[in-house]
Amino acid sequence: MTLFADRATFEAALDALPEPDAAAIAAARARQAQLTKPPGSLGRLEDIACFFAGWQGRERPAIENGRAVVFAGNHGVAALGVSAFPAAVTAQMVANFRAGGAAINALAGAAGLSLEVVPLDLDRPTADFTVGPAMDEAECLAALNAGAATVGDDLDLLVLGEMGIANSTAAAALAARSYGGTGTDWVGPGTGVDAAGVACKAEVVDRGLARHAAVPQGAFETLRRVGGRETAAIAGAVLTARLKRVPVLLDGFICCAAVAPLAAAGPAILDHCLAGHCSAEPGHRRLLGHFGLKPLLRLDMRLGEGSGAAVAVGIVRAALAAHDGMATFAEAGVSGAT
Amino acid sequence: MTLFADRATFEAALDALPEPDAAAIAAARARQAQLTKPPGSLGRLEDIACFFAGWQGRERPAIENGRAVVFAGNHGVAALGVSAFPAAVTAQMVANFRAGGAAINALAGAAGLSLEVVPLDLDRPTADFTVGPAMDEAECLAALNAGAATVGDDLDLLVLGEMGIANSTAAAALAARSYGGTGTDWVGPGTGVDAAGVACKAEVVDRGLARHAAVPQGAFETLRRVGGRETAAIAGAVLTARLKRVPVLLDGFICCAAVAPLAAAGPAILDHCLAGHCSAEPGHRRLLGHFGLKPLLRLDMRLGEGSGAAVAVGIVRAALAAHDGMATFAEAGVSGAT
Repeated sequence: MTLFADRATFEAALDALPEPDAAAIAAARARQAQLTKPPGSLGRLEDIACFFAGWQGRERPAIENGRAVVFAGNHGVAALGVSAFPAAVTAQMVANFRAGGAAINALAGAAGLSLEVVPLDLDRPTADFTVGPAMDEAECLAALNAGAATVGDDLDLLVLGEMGIANSTAAAALAARSYGGTGTDWVGPGTGVDAAGVACKAEVVDRGLARHAAVPQGAFETLRRVGGRETAAIAGAVLTARLKRVPVLLDGFICCAAVAPLAAAGPAILDHCLAGHCSAEPGHRRLLGHFGLKPLLRLDMRLGEGSGAAVAVGIVRAALAAHDGMATFAEAGVSGAT
Repeated sequence: MTLFADRATFEAALDALPEPDAAAIAAARARQAQLTKPPGSLGRLEDIACFFAGWQGRERPAIENGRAVVFAGNHGVAALGVSAFPAAVTAQMVANFRAGGAAINALAGAAGLSLEVVPLDLDRPTADFTVGPAMDEAECLAALNAGAATVGDDLDLLVLGEMGIANSTAAAALAARSYGGTGTDWVGPGTGVDAAGVACKAEVVDRGLARHAAVPQGAFETLRRVGGRETAAIAGAVLTARLKRVPVLLDGFICCAAVAPLAAAGPAILDHCLAGHCSAEPGHRRLLGHFGLKPLLRLDMRLGEGSGAAVAVGIVRAALAAHDGMATFAEAGVSGAT
């Protein structure tokens, strides 16, 4: 599928975002007010139900066809010593995803999600962004379209995840180009580098920011210059989900950094997204603050793969089950507040 | 079942608490270190898996027979204007639980838990604790044993909830007698009373504390003097679960206040418990602080019924699914950190 034929098509889509179904939201709110509980006592579960009502366009939303998609990519900056793991692990983990042995396999299964794994030219890492753009325009468009292609018309929930050795460094660069700040402001331990590793990551990010400083901060240029194929694919999937009104659960720092260039240009792009969790990677909390999103979970996870968002699906399912399954005061013959 | 024949039996049980299986915990920790993820990257999910390993006594714990139990009771202090709802709602909600229309029905279903509803002498409210003990010794023992009777030997997870108009006032009195402070320190809006209602609750709690101030703060006396049947049942169930090494997910303010008299006397009683969530009721956060328990969820819920703990079961299931289902580095042929 080539949803985004060129950069102009991509940018035009960002300027014509569909809104949720206001009537469905109002109907869901009215239903919540009649269910056998004190008003508001289910807290955020009530908001989640109404959010899904709006994007699914029905008073009683449901998850019948939820999917987790994990995009994988390799990075030129992996050669600069920014990760605790060798670059070969990206392909090894893709094999692990396909064999069913990774965290996201177990967590997607527990959440009742199907799982799609999308490796993106793993034998062709992006270019080292400290010396030039990570991708040319055609490569970035191909990654955006690979993301778009995963968003079927029949999906009612999309969980987005990623895998890519060195991609927390690319993510820090995406975040810094989107919201300002230096490498130090946005890097963290990632998969587990020590203080020297963190300093190395910050220095690589700063060199990348300097290399591309003269170029305007637009979403497309940021995605292609300092991002990776998997982060561009996530951006393409989030935008396509919006065009199809499919609600999205965002995962951790890298997933959120992938949409930061879009959100910095226009925060409304994330109106169909919930933040699944806040990870232990320090930049994630700051990104969620910029997005204005309150995470559903804080479990000190920092794995990626869509793992935190997949765990949060359990909360969404609980919210929709209560919204759909509870009796009203009238149905149950229960007295209201005096 | 009469596990607690008298007060002395109950107190003796509190002094002989079994410990988790240290070998199973060590085996689970060793397994976590070999799974295909950076060490520690599943955060609290890893701790949850090891916690369940310890209490279930196996390297790979599972939830095959998890149960939610909702205890219901009526309160003499309901006549003092402390709730937004009439006391008749307790029995109406028990009927709603049995008909399947309440939040806990939907949430237990979504969590894969069976549900047991235990109404406790609803036509015989406890006495008004501002004028005397809420229960005599026999009544309190009967409630403790009603709780104990719900803990089958075959359970591998227990979620505890409650329903009882006016019981957030009794809960505030339990918390204050356990950890000090006045009514104002521990009352809140409950199901939704206004500022005048909150002030009324605080005044009722203060009168109750004064009425029983001369009596030592021991767990049994506190449970029977200012608590309710449903809170004593929760205390009995938590203690019995411990004796049988069944892990427990605690719910909100009232569920936690029910075990506060036990925890104040010896915090180790909660070693087999996780805090399912932190509710919007302000006293809950303070209670969890006294317990040293970090809640799994913060979703601004304030319903009771075991609802928050039931939602948290999804996190536990995710943790156990990852722990059991993931491949090791060796199995998957994935390289470790360099």
